[in-house]
Amino acid sequence: MAFEFDTATQLAETDTPGAFTGRFSHDWAIGPAVNGGVVMALAADAITRVLGEGETPHADPLAFSAHFLSASADGEMRVDTEVLRRGRTFSTAEAVITQTGADGAVQERMRALATYGDLDVASPVRRSVEAPAMPGPDECVDAAKARTMGPMDVPPLMHRLDLRLDPATTGWALGRPSGRGEMRAWIRFADGRDADPMSLLFFLDAMPPVSFDLGIGGWAPTLEFSGHVRGRPAPGWLQMQTRSATLTGGLMEEDALIWDSRGVLVAQSRQLCSVRIPQGWTPPA
Amino acid sequence: MAFEFDTATQLAETDTPGAFTGRFSHDWAIGPAVNGGVVMALAADAITRVLGEGETPHADPLAFSAHFLSASADGEMRVDTEVLRRGRTFSTAEAVITQTGADGAVQERMRALATYGDLDVASPVRRSVEAPAMPGPDECVDAAKARTMGPMDVPPLMHRLDLRLDPATTGWALGRPSGRGEMRAWIRFADGRDADPMSLLFFLDAMPPVSFDLGIGGWAPTLEFSGHVRGRPAPGWLQMQTRSATLTGGLMEEDALIWDSRGVLVAQSRQLCSVRIPQGWTPPA
Repeated sequence: MAFEFDTATQLAETDTPGAFTGRFSHDWAIGPAVNGGVVMALAADAITRVLGEGETPHADPLAFSAHFLSASADGEMRVDTEVLRRGRTFSTAEAVITQTGADGAVQERMRALATYGDLDVASPVRRSVEAPAMPGPDECVDAAKARTMGPMDVPPLMHRLDLRLDPATTGWALGRPSGRGEMRAWIRFADGRDADPMSLLFFLDAMPPVSFDLGIGGWAPTLEFSGHVRGRPAPGWLQMQTRSATLTGGLMEEDALIWDSRGVLVAQSRQLCSVRIPQGWTPPA
Repeated sequence: MAFEFDTATQLAETDTPGAFTGRFSHDWAIGPAVNGGVVMALAADAITRVLGEGETPHADPLAFSAHFLSASADGEMRVDTEVLRRGRTFSTAEAVITQTGADGAVQERMRALATYGDLDVASPVRRSVEAPAMPGPDECVDAAKARTMGPMDVPPLMHRLDLRLDPATTGWALGRPSGRGEMRAWIRFADGRDADPMSLLFFLDAMPPVSFDLGIGGWAPTLEFSGHVRGRPAPGWLQMQTRSATLTGGLMEEDALIWDSRGVLVAQSRQLCSVRIPQGWTPPA
């Protein structure tokens, strides 16, 4: 039986070179929208198929930048790729994700630029950030067992994950956000699939919004996401930290770091999200 | 007389809607290539012209993601824009920068995705990062008076800037890199032009590479850059901090923060750069 993530990111070739079709599923939704991380993973996989061929195959995403244009819905999707550059060490491509509505209108969901290479060449760690000290997975809070996620019901996406939140960063779930703007967790697929470079892009966007820890409920739609995959993850748990330092108007940046089971930093990202700030909100002390 | 930066980013309309032509100048070069920040500013200006019109004008870059494809050279350039979405609060566009060689071949230099809005709506600061404590501009090291920049001659770009480096982060210039991977500076245009949102994208990429402080000489070409403009800068000096925490293979991330003369955080960025690590290199203690 296929792993859930592989089913969710399955692509079929079309008659157009570099264009593929797939399906978005409500199983990976947050509210009415399919999680942006799944949308990105489908784009990343399409690019891997295109850049992973030829004389200098570059199958691994090193830098992936996405701008989100409209909410992805349950149903058929299409990804069109364009190769911008094939280099000796790096190659760059663009991916455009669209869905066609019942009225036949084509809606663009996301556009991404990505630079690919070979992580076996790019990954020896020479200098890095250590994973934060935190309790082991069994001492952490199992998000799938939570009845609500902050002010929201637990979304379908959370059932695809085995997410264990550091109890020191779950005050928001009990109405006591720390105000630091930080979450720490262990994370992996619920069905035991191990992480790979493509799924790291998904995990970078899979945590509950860090704005919950600032006392700001509601989901935080991503406007822009930029992720760097820095290494090929070892099997097992991933350790993850998300933080936000700056809130201006209704915009917040969210920085994410992921270490693999060996404690090696394997991915980092920053995204700009839009949050709905409650009337009279002040940062929790 | 026009300010240097306005001359460098001057665009002329073409017969194609959304397409403009301009000139790259060696005056803004680092080594053989025109500085990526200037390339981005030209793209950002073209997008401002396109998205800054209409019923809901969005003239300010909020999130700007660029992938660099080849080195920009002194001479004519062209930027083609495509509007991907016009929304009530945010709009998104793409910009493609090309140059045509003597042989008539069109070379793509950079492709960018950008989400725009109105900084007067998006900028009230609700939570932020304080500027680091450092000596005032007159107590700092004037980069234009330096004879060399690390192992390199001072590039033309540096003469466009008034760049004052915090003496605590200039050990690298004397062969004593700190190994922290950090630089702090005051920065502004040499000819007195004040910063605006578009030029903040330029400044985010204007500092000497932070790899100098790791004992790694040579320029660090940007593969991918993602910048967020968080506020409209007040006139006067900008304060800037760049840092890198992770070096894997020959890839380094460089994070930049910019505060304006009031101490308000107005921009932040992360880029992934390629560095050439000397044989036998180890991180300075």
